[in-house]
Amino acid sequence: MQVLIIGGGGFLGRRLARELLANGGLYQGELRHMILLDKSFPESKTNDDRVEYIEADFNNEAVIRNALRHRPELIFHLAAIVSGEAEKNFDLGMRINFHGTLQLLEQCRALHHHPRIVFASSCAVFGGDVSKTIHDETGPKPRSSYGTQKAMVELLMNDYSRRGFVDARSLRLPTIAIRPGKPNAATSSFVSAIIREPLAGQRATYPVPLKTEVWIQSPKRVVQNFIHAANLEERLLGDDRMINLPGLTTTIEALIRALEKIADPGITRLIVHEPDAFLEGIVLTWPPRFHTERANTLGFVRDNSAEEVIKSYIVEEGITMGSTK
Amino acid sequence: MQVLIIGGGGFLGRRLARELLANGGLYQGELRHMILLDKSFPESKTNDDRVEYIEADFNNEAVIRNALRHRPELIFHLAAIVSGEAEKNFDLGMRINFHGTLQLLEQCRALHHHPRIVFASSCAVFGGDVSKTIHDETGPKPRSSYGTQKAMVELLMNDYSRRGFVDARSLRLPTIAIRPGKPNAATSSFVSAIIREPLAGQRATYPVPLKTEVWIQSPKRVVQNFIHAANLEERLLGDDRMINLPGLTTTIEALIRALEKIADPGITRLIVHEPDAFLEGIVLTWPPRFHTERANTLGFVRDNSAEEVIKSYIVEEGITMGSTK
Repeated sequence: MQVLIIGGGGFLGRRLARELLANGGLYQGELRHMILLDKSFPESKTNDDRVEYIEADFNNEAVIRNALRHRPELIFHLAAIVSGEAEKNFDLGMRINFHGTLQLLEQCRALHHHPRIVFASSCAVFGGDVSKTIHDETGPKPRSSYGTQKAMVELLMNDYSRRGFVDARSLRLPTIAIRPGKPNAATSSFVSAIIREPLAGQRATYPVPLKTEVWIQSPKRVVQNFIHAANLEERLLGDDRMINLPGLTTTIEALIRALEKIADPGITRLIVHEPDAFLEGIVLTWPPRFHTERANTLGFVRDNSAEEVIKSYIVEEGITMGSTK
Repeated sequence: MQVLIIGGGGFLGRRLARELLANGGLYQGELRHMILLDKSFPESKTNDDRVEYIEADFNNEAVIRNALRHRPELIFHLAAIVSGEAEKNFDLGMRINFHGTLQLLEQCRALHHHPRIVFASSCAVFGGDVSKTIHDETGPKPRSSYGTQKAMVELLMNDYSRRGFVDARSLRLPTIAIRPGKPNAATSSFVSAIIREPLAGQRATYPVPLKTEVWIQSPKRVVQNFIHAANLEERLLGDDRMINLPGLTTTIEALIRALEKIADPGITRLIVHEPDAFLEGIVLTWPPRFHTERANTLGFVRDNSAEEVIKSYIVEEGITMGSTK
C-alpha cells in the first residue's frame, strides 16, 4: 500500500514513519511506498528504498498534487503551525492549519478513491470553563487560533467523510510529553522541557503554577494511537470522526516529583517557576480532565503515570543519567 | 449609526429592516443609514431615504468592500445557501456559506473598527443522537454540509471576536415557522408549508412521520432576538459568542391539531404524509430538544405554543380565512 505522512519531518512524523517501516502493522496490507512531506528534514534520511522525501511547504497546490500522485490509500496529516506561533501570526496559522488542509481535502476528493486520513487534531479545541470534565459530546470552545483552526478542520473531516469523499478520523491529541530535542513554539513546550532539560543537566522553567493540571500522552502512545486509528474499520466510526484520545491527568508538581524519584533528588534545583502571561493565557484554557469513553471502547491507549511517561522517554531516547538511583 | 443587512432581500432580512426602520430600538443610537445587500429583492423597495440597496452576489470581494464603505457599526449577516441546496451543491454551499463569510470577516478585520456582527447560524449544527437534549456545552456534530459550514463560521466568529477584530454573536436559529410565501429549498420548508398552504386552500405534504418533533421559532420572535443580540453588551458574552436560541419543541401532529382548532377542522384533509428519504435523512438528524439556559439568562425570547405560532403568522401576514371558528 501507499502511505503519505504530511509533517513527516517532524518529531512525531519521523517516529511514526520509523515504526511503520520497521514493524508495519497496517491491516490494509504491506507498505510498498511511503512519501514523507515536510518543509525540512532535520534528521538524516533513511536509505530504505520504500521512502521518498518531498521537501516543500505543505500549503501549495502543486506540492499536494505531487504528494498524492500515487493515490495513497492512507494519509497521516500531522503538519501544523504550532499553538504559540499560530497565536502570534494569525494569517500564517490560517494559511497552513486551515487553508492548506482544505486544499488537501479538495485534492483527495478529486482523486475519487476515498483515501483514509488520520488527522492530528488537538485538545486545544477545548477551552473556557476548564474546571469541568470534557466528555465525548462536549463542544469545542477554543481560546486560541490554533484550536479554532483545528476545530474547523475536524468539521471538514467529518463532512468530507459523511459525503464519501474521504475516510477521515481526527484524533484530539493531549499535550505530548516528553518531547525530545529542543523547545519549540508550542505553548505546551515547557511540559517536556522541565523533564528533558534537567536530565541533560540544563535549567528549565515553567510558566504556570505548580498545581496546574495537564492532560498528557507520551510519544510512544501517540504513535500507537495513530496506527490504531489507521486500522479502525470505518463502520465503527459512523458519521462522527472526532475522537478525544485517552491521556493522563497529572500536574507540573507530580511530573517534578516523579523525576526526583527516577533521577537525583537534587535535580529539581534546575526547575524554576518563571511566570509568563502569554503562555498562561493559553495553557490555562486547556481542560486537563476528560472522560474518553468512546476512545476507550475503540481501543485507543493511554499512559498510566507520570513516572511511566518519564521512563518511556528515558528508554526510547536512550538517555543516560549521570546520577540515578 | 450605520447598519448593514447581508441577506436583506430575504424573508427575515426584510422583516428585520422594516422593524429597524419603523421602531429603531438599537441602543447604539439612531439609525442614519442602512444598506441592504442581497442577490435580488423580490419585494417592492422602500422609498425611505435612509435605505440603500446593493443587488449583487454576497461572495465577491468588491461587493463586500462596497457594502462596508461607510464602516457600519452593526452588521446582520443572514445570507446563506439553505440546507437542501447546500447538501445538493457542495461547492456552492462552501463558496457562499463559508468562504463568503470568511471574506466578510477579513474585510471587517481590515476596517480596524471592531464592528458588531449578528450572525444567523442554525441548530442544524447539531446532529447525531437526537434523542438527547442539547445543552449549551453540547458540541456541534452536523449531519449536513449546511450545518458544517455554519459551525465553521461560528468558530471563526468566536476567534475573530476573541482577537478583537470584530464583536460577533452567532445565533443558532431553530426552524423558522411559519414562513410566508413559497416553499424554499430549506429541508425544513414543509414545517411552514403544512400550515401556510392549507390556510390558502392549498394542499401540503410533510415528508417525516407525524410524531416527529421539531424545534421552531416564529419570524416575529426571531426578529426580536436579532435586535436583542445587537443590543447585548460585549462583556456579557466573553469569549463565547455561540448562542442556542430558545425555541419551542412541538410535533408535526401538534401543529396540525393547533391549525384545526384555529381554522376549520376539515382543513387537515389538505395535509398529506408523503415520505421523502432525502428530506428525512437531514431533518431527522436535527435534535428537537434544547435546554437554553444561557439564552434565557441573556434575555432572548421564545414562542409558547403551536397555537401562538400559527396565530402570530395569521396576524402578522394579515391572512384572511374562508372558514374559521
